[in-house]
Amino acid sequence: MNSIKVGLLGVGNVGGGTFDVLKRNQEEIRRRAGRGIEVVAVSARNLERARTRTHGEVRVVADPFEIVDDPSIDIVVELIGGYDTARELVMRAIANGKHVVTANKALLAVHGNEIFKAAQEKGVMVAFEAAVAGGIPIIKALREGLTANRVQWLAGIINGTTNFILSEMRDKGLDFDTVLKEAQALGYAEADPTFDIEGVDAAHKATILSAIAFGIPVQFAKAHVEGITKLEAIDIRYAEELGYRIKLLGIAKRTRVDGADGIELRVHPTLIPAKRLIANVEGAMNAVLVQGDAIGATLYYGKGAGAEPTASAVIADLVDITRLATADPEHRVPHLAFQPDELADIAILPMAEITTSYYLRMRVADQPGVLADLTRILADSGISIDAMMQKEPGEGEVQADIIMLTHQTQEKKVLAAIARMEGLPTVLGSVTKIRLENLA
Amino acid sequence: MNSIKVGLLGVGNVGGGTFDVLKRNQEEIRRRAGRGIEVVAVSARNLERARTRTHGEVRVVADPFEIVDDPSIDIVVELIGGYDTARELVMRAIANGKHVVTANKALLAVHGNEIFKAAQEKGVMVAFEAAVAGGIPIIKALREGLTANRVQWLAGIINGTTNFILSEMRDKGLDFDTVLKEAQALGYAEADPTFDIEGVDAAHKATILSAIAFGIPVQFAKAHVEGITKLEAIDIRYAEELGYRIKLLGIAKRTRVDGADGIELRVHPTLIPAKRLIANVEGAMNAVLVQGDAIGATLYYGKGAGAEPTASAVIADLVDITRLATADPEHRVPHLAFQPDELADIAILPMAEITTSYYLRMRVADQPGVLADLTRILADSGISIDAMMQKEPGEGEVQADIIMLTHQTQEKKVLAAIARMEGLPTVLGSVTKIRLENLA
Repeated sequence: MNSIKVGLLGVGNVGGGTFDVLKRNQEEIRRRAGRGIEVVAVSARNLERARTRTHGEVRVVADPFEIVDDPSIDIVVELIGGYDTARELVMRAIANGKHVVTANKALLAVHGNEIFKAAQEKGVMVAFEAAVAGGIPIIKALREGLTANRVQWLAGIINGTTNFILSEMRDKGLDFDTVLKEAQALGYAEADPTFDIEGVDAAHKATILSAIAFGIPVQFAKAHVEGITKLEAIDIRYAEELGYRIKLLGIAKRTRVDGADGIELRVHPTLIPAKRLIANVEGAMNAVLVQGDAIGATLYYGKGAGAEPTASAVIADLVDITRLATADPEHRVPHLAFQPDELADIAILPMAEITTSYYLRMRVADQPGVLADLTRILADSGISIDAMMQKEPGEGEVQADIIMLTHQTQEKKVLAAIARMEGLPTVLGSVTKIRLENLA
Repeated sequence: MNSIKVGLLGVGNVGGGTFDVLKRNQEEIRRRAGRGIEVVAVSARNLERARTRTHGEVRVVADPFEIVDDPSIDIVVELIGGYDTARELVMRAIANGKHVVTANKALLAVHGNEIFKAAQEKGVMVAFEAAVAGGIPIIKALREGLTANRVQWLAGIINGTTNFILSEMRDKGLDFDTVLKEAQALGYAEADPTFDIEGVDAAHKATILSAIAFGIPVQFAKAHVEGITKLEAIDIRYAEELGYRIKLLGIAKRTRVDGADGIELRVHPTLIPAKRLIANVEGAMNAVLVQGDAIGATLYYGKGAGAEPTASAVIADLVDITRLATADPEHRVPHLAFQPDELADIAILPMAEITTSYYLRMRVADQPGVLADLTRILADSGISIDAMMQKEPGEGEVQADIIMLTHQTQEKKVLAAIARMEGLPTVLGSVTKIRLENLA
């Protein structure tokens, strides 16, 4: 049988990795897929570099639309990134009846609904395993492996840059800015790291995961996005003393508020018990923990970025498409795990409505009655305390740190309590609040 | 569209769980699969109990062949276990043009080649996610998620009973027999635990994993099978002191011996570095670590047994079949991950030929020259030492324990060295040998 013809839009890190792995493992892949899978054309801004990268073995073009419009190409792999051009290319590839593979989480988190609708109507597949957690087959696990389950929640370390930074901050007791510079020097963080450290990248991925876990449209605009830039070394240390690690988690959770179903979709630094397996995922590694009603907890761990790990996911999608191209489009695995006409209209909750536990740290004047005032405020707000730690003032200091871990409560109650605490004359400065998930 | 009609052969633990989950999550599953999936008949030896279990909602028959021959049933789920009757039922279901889902690892590890061949010829699917690691979608991950990779090795904690026993032995410092009784009382071990504690169950699963990882036929007869019954509490403690945990691993590894490709397929207690994520998989949980050339290491973790976790895998297979039933059979995901005419003929190596590291413990007379003799034997055999620990003799004793960790070497060299060591008059009794894998 003829080989499947692939065109790569972009032949940088992931594109180059995809080219290399497809070539190196072509025999292994053909034995699995039943047909060869072959890159026949790539588009790139720098033609010379692209030719060198592909050893002069494939057609190199400057205009990606040339590939998208090429009738000899079966599958387009979009690795350009960004929103506008990528969207135009993907939509035109679909309109031309081509299957698409993309690693572009930003595109799917924002324009996914439109893209999947167009693909559905045209009867082509848009596959995106590489968009979340690099090579880890988490999309496949959620979409196909856990179909028996009502997914209750998932929580993932889905941004390697921030996990690397947090691991280093903890290991070496360094502050955020210092470690960020180190991460940039080592290539773990980009020159402009905003998307990573502000949680945007993780929120793109969490948005995609929430859609396939719960059968809802992608709704990036409603995700709560909070990065690690304000995290202080002292909180990492105090968390450690209390038996917790701080990780940037992408969380999607089914919940009920006032008798109605709701979805929590949020990215923020989170205390998790140090003994959990996922708390021990260090460096640039990724992991996603999924809780289903039948299966209980499952964890998926691996490299979340890098040329060949991401290429591994891109090629898995190419093989899937090759294997399943003959399936009646109505019977293929639906893009968002649920049949397109079966997506649910469940509201994504505003942060004030979410329920979780909290780590609160405040600096207080070391004088009688402080603790009584603080605990009274929490009691009045209906918030109960799970653990408390008061640190002795440093030599010659008259201020002490108090750390409280709360039981589960609603965010709006905590915000109100914090406002009252900060109004106390004995509480100095603002109260630090970090959410805590037990993940049990 | 009409719902898919399922017949369950056996409605015990897993069958009951499958019935429950299909019913409880029917709406969620229909939204995913595009069609309802409905149990319409079950077979059971105890009709009354089966009727109670299924609330009188489905047809209950005594003869499983009645279900297999029923033209109204689309998919047969085999949950009887064992070899002979199960094989006959599965083969007849296939002959009748029905798709089959089975959780029966023993059947597939021994008769899989014949079963998959028959299914291929008849154009039906035989799905078996539940056969390995319960609900964890490891079959799907290997067969579809990692298709880009040349799998280099995999190592799994794939028997919950033995992992529970080993966790308890370590936690409480108890010996094997005591913990086995506890495990039986708690329901973690069966009344006849032979298949679990002797490593047979893990070897069935490792055999299936080796086939889909490397594209070879299932060859259970060639697997090395070694359980945990001879493991002593003292070795768990010494391993701990050296920074290792002991786990019963199922290992499948690609290797080269004398210029020829070979496969290692073995189940045995194994020292692994305590800091590895998989070393921290405790109790009855399962986990499989897979090393691919593109993706690096990935880990899959979850419940490896139990009614609903296993049902989760059974139902995932039912949804897969429902979704993909219209695919041209030539284009479906092949049973053993590789196209049936593309299986490779790579020899599974005898244990003497495998390469790994070793933990050796010997009791020696506390006198000069002993260590010199022992290290000379290893040096003569070309085995180098990675770490060594000599324990002081106990109060009033004149014998000391020596523990050595070797670098990678061939099993036959180690066996020869051990034979020489045991011939020394200063070495008392036999040398304990436990294999060690770095999993890096």
